[in-house]
Amino acid sequence: MITRLSNYFLRTLREDPSDAEVTSHRLLVRAGYIRRQAPGVFAWLPLGLRVKEKIERIVREEMHNAGAHEVHFPALLPREPYEITGRWEEYGEGLFRLKDRKGSDYLLAPTHEEVFTLLVKDLYNSYKDLPLSIYQIQDKYRDEARPRAGLLRGREFTMKDAYSFDYTDAGLDASYQAQRDAYERIFTRLGLEYVIVKADAGAMGGSKSEEFLHPTPIGEDTFVRSAGGYAANVEAFTTVVPEAIPFDGLAPAEVLPTPDTATIQTLVDAANANHPRPDGRPWTAADTLKNVVLALRYPDGRRELVVVGLPGDREVDQKRAEAAFSPAEVEPANEDDFKANEPGLFDGIAGVYLTKGYIGPWHPQHGQFLGEQAFPDRQNIRYLLDPRVVPGTGWITGANEHGHHVFGLVAGRDFTADGFVEVAEVRDGDPAPNGSGPVELARGMEIGHVFQLGRKYAEALGLKVLDENGKLVTVTMGSYGIGVTRILAIIAELNNDANGLIWPPSVAPFDVHVVATGRDAAVFEAAETVAAALEAAGKDVLFDDRPKVSPGVKFGDAELIGVPTIVIAGRGVADGVVEIWDRRTGVRTPVAISEVAEALA
Amino acid sequence: MITRLSNYFLRTLREDPSDAEVTSHRLLVRAGYIRRQAPGVFAWLPLGLRVKEKIERIVREEMHNAGAHEVHFPALLPREPYEITGRWEEYGEGLFRLKDRKGSDYLLAPTHEEVFTLLVKDLYNSYKDLPLSIYQIQDKYRDEARPRAGLLRGREFTMKDAYSFDYTDAGLDASYQAQRDAYERIFTRLGLEYVIVKADAGAMGGSKSEEFLHPTPIGEDTFVRSAGGYAANVEAFTTVVPEAIPFDGLAPAEVLPTPDTATIQTLVDAANANHPRPDGRPWTAADTLKNVVLALRYPDGRRELVVVGLPGDREVDQKRAEAAFSPAEVEPANEDDFKANEPGLFDGIAGVYLTKGYIGPWHPQHGQFLGEQAFPDRQNIRYLLDPRVVPGTGWITGANEHGHHVFGLVAGRDFTADGFVEVAEVRDGDPAPNGSGPVELARGMEIGHVFQLGRKYAEALGLKVLDENGKLVTVTMGSYGIGVTRILAIIAELNNDANGLIWPPSVAPFDVHVVATGRDAAVFEAAETVAAALEAAGKDVLFDDRPKVSPGVKFGDAELIGVPTIVIAGRGVADGVVEIWDRRTGVRTPVAISEVAEALA
Repeated sequence: MITRLSNYFLRTLREDPSDAEVTSHRLLVRAGYIRRQAPGVFAWLPLGLRVKEKIERIVREEMHNAGAHEVHFPALLPREPYEITGRWEEYGEGLFRLKDRKGSDYLLAPTHEEVFTLLVKDLYNSYKDLPLSIYQIQDKYRDEARPRAGLLRGREFTMKDAYSFDYTDAGLDASYQAQRDAYERIFTRLGLEYVIVKADAGAMGGSKSEEFLHPTPIGEDTFVRSAGGYAANVEAFTTVVPEAIPFDGLAPAEVLPTPDTATIQTLVDAANANHPRPDGRPWTAADTLKNVVLALRYPDGRRELVVVGLPGDREVDQKRAEAAFSPAEVEPANEDDFKANEPGLFDGIAGVYLTKGYIGPWHPQHGQFLGEQAFPDRQNIRYLLDPRVVPGTGWITGANEHGHHVFGLVAGRDFTADGFVEVAEVRDGDPAPNGSGPVELARGMEIGHVFQLGRKYAEALGLKVLDENGKLVTVTMGSYGIGVTRILAIIAELNNDANGLIWPPSVAPFDVHVVATGRDAAVFEAAETVAAALEAAGKDVLFDDRPKVSPGVKFGDAELIGVPTIVIAGRGVADGVVEIWDRRTGVRTPVAISEVAEALA
Repeated sequence: MITRLSNYFLRTLREDPSDAEVTSHRLLVRAGYIRRQAPGVFAWLPLGLRVKEKIERIVREEMHNAGAHEVHFPALLPREPYEITGRWEEYGEGLFRLKDRKGSDYLLAPTHEEVFTLLVKDLYNSYKDLPLSIYQIQDKYRDEARPRAGLLRGREFTMKDAYSFDYTDAGLDASYQAQRDAYERIFTRLGLEYVIVKADAGAMGGSKSEEFLHPTPIGEDTFVRSAGGYAANVEAFTTVVPEAIPFDGLAPAEVLPTPDTATIQTLVDAANANHPRPDGRPWTAADTLKNVVLALRYPDGRRELVVVGLPGDREVDQKRAEAAFSPAEVEPANEDDFKANEPGLFDGIAGVYLTKGYIGPWHPQHGQFLGEQAFPDRQNIRYLLDPRVVPGTGWITGANEHGHHVFGLVAGRDFTADGFVEVAEVRDGDPAPNGSGPVELARGMEIGHVFQLGRKYAEALGLKVLDENGKLVTVTMGSYGIGVTRILAIIAELNNDANGLIWPPSVAPFDVHVVATGRDAAVFEAAETVAAALEAAGKDVLFDDRPKVSPGVKFGDAELIGVPTIVIAGRGVADGVVEIWDRRTGVRTPVAISEVAEALA
């Protein structure tokens, strides 16, 4: 088909939109693909719709190849199913909620596990009906706190979400693998390099999960990988736990004055200056146990303080902390929190409680000081440890007295914890948990996510089938998502130059962009001829036939729009020649008018 | 392509859904096309999606042929543009409203005039850019008071909405005509007979509007048509106003006792018995002036009482009343309304005010009694008249005294009104307003609606372009809607029999439904051969290859699903023959296996 620019709903813009934070947003708006309607909410113009539909077609074909059936759910859903699974609350402020005229509660669905589960419950009842994989391509809603980066993190966005239903774990493995394979084919067709990383199941509450990340230095996600093939996002990385060390022969703990050492650096300096290690090796931050007070905010509004002890050379990683404490949101304790736990609050304890800068798990007068092992009346603050703090390891840590630390405090001997937690940052060189050597950190963009949900949703909503023996068994599920509009933005983010977009052919809005330059009627006729020949060869042609627009503007628009192949009809027409311009390489090749269609076949 | 029922996400149901009020809803649920998620909110199963997409494809093709460009707007939109045009209020409870986490107001759009207007304002600025027609196929939301009839009146529904932009009235006429022509082609391709009727622009606030109605006795809309080619829906029908009559020689009005005559029938009987007409002709209901008290409820919550005087042989038509008083909702005055206007409320007036059953525009002691012409302190109740009540017409009407009516009360002489209003029912035989003879009433279903909006939205939102003389002119717009999911339901409503659906070929989920019956491997092989031959001929085939399902169940499912052509492979296969079963006529024709594809070409 030929689409004529002289009669097309398109305006390219000279200026970048003022609210664009990323390249894809800037270029998609300027080139006339999308327009912003509200923060994180966009309208699709004709060019944008074309690219979106091409991506959707590829996704549909591969879903079909994976044996998945297409359905389509509403965005507006009643509260009840989400209430049953707890997600009505868990989503917190991220969920768009509304009431109808009768006062009933509804939501704009951010994902559809609940209603897919109920649909299958409604229609199926036997193991013979399974396995089943169903999917939709549908507009979803999340009330992001900071909708940003254009389509990369919108509040209304199009997703392909698929769900699998099996009655055995092996069945789920197979369904999961089929979707995972489909994702590999989809990203290959889209020209998107990917890494599959172990992921944290997070709010989905599943048992196994992997993320497809596109590795790129401009990615917002961090992941780790080892030369030996391990890959995980930072949330899912698990620390290799060292062996415990026998207590025998370890010196007793000793409280020493360490004035003005409320930071790790000042503490290490003071320790080396005033309390050198007996064997002469200098103390380092890794010898200290840092105790960080975190505030957890749960979806129901509850707020809990926890203290986490971790080696002093590691920071708390916000994403790992959020994953570890999901569904709670995590923030550093604030001044009010410290104030509320100031000296004198607990009867019978002299000295301080949370003495900022000098917090530790052990108190010189009271022994075990933090966590449920301490005193029953202190159980409102849990004490959790980094997995590296195994029994027998000795630490310099706060003595819970202003200006004092305790040296040689031994885990397992002098203090215990309520549990272990993975909130410490991952670093280059940390050992991969599967023994495949040290990991390195890299950045990427999430382009897909597959989850083994297991039986959580089926159990909550009562989805059971009769197995071969006539026994009711709970179904086990998988959930598989690709953000269609997000992927479009990622492709735009990765394929551009200073002059505009450069689409991969598989998703380009048109196959060829034919440009007629100048005012010479013969040129326009030649361009018509070329466009018609390309159309006859099955190409989708964008034809810049605007009569009164200068060649410079036309070239600028062609570069901005980013159709990968441009054909320019200009002066060469007199000699029967046009130019084929490769948008990506910039190379222009003269070709006889009669041979253009063949050259681009 | 071949779709195998042995591996398809489909369950037909034996029982009708308990909440189904209409045939289409009942059959679409039973045959596995849709599932209800909430009142007026449905999920689309694979069969339903296929039909929906076929309708959408036809609509897209004809929009393309009409020169309209496809875009896609979000459903979630900010309040501001709708606030500016007044529709944030006007939609009243019919609008789904919500707030984001920052407390900003949003709506789920019921229609998109505002944002299309702003988009064009954003991108275009010259008459050279016009005319422009853009459209989308998109999910819309209306919080219907009584979502009912399945997809016929849902709260989430898919619509094609197109908008045209011109800078001259002649341009708007042409754009309107192009869409109107496209609608004719669409309905023809969908096999939907239609009547184009003059419509009331209603809440859209436009200047000219037509509705496409499918005439059917089960339609929920009433329209009128004359043999001479006039057609209008009842809201848009305008009464032919009789000539005024000179007052000269008309007898003075006379108050007469008419005990127990609070209804028109009792009044006519009493008048004939006790106060016969001087010339002996019997009084009829048409001689009486009925005064109906209506309560208008405005979107902003305001409530107003009006009294409407109309010939006693006509009832108030609710739809005409709603159209006349739009955007107010109209309901009969209630007991509280009458109570609030009981005797003694107004100083200086003896007797009663709204004396139920005896209300009239004139009072024996006070003269003009109702409306703004009466007393300044009564201007809170407007008095409006049916257009037939022209000056010089005489009436029997309430005397505002219990048990009394006034006879020979002459309009224009004894009383006047604050205006005229079209709320009286239309009846068979009423004259068409264009002089084309008497009209007859018919029923239909709305399948499309085209509006000339004029400059209302462009004016409110400041959409202007420079004309040929460099002068800024306000753009004039049209709005054109087709309910895709509603049309699907209407097609289902019109095409079925006791056994199930019967799709027109243009929208059937598959072209052919091949059924293999029995357990004979040869039959299944023959069916495979037929399916493959049909696929090779470009047909979309649904193949019932389920191995252990009885022929009766398979036939039942085939009838319920409603693919128009069914091919049955059964015993005849031994003789090289299958049957082609025309779902609509029921006729079964034996055909050689090798000739099926040709027979169905």
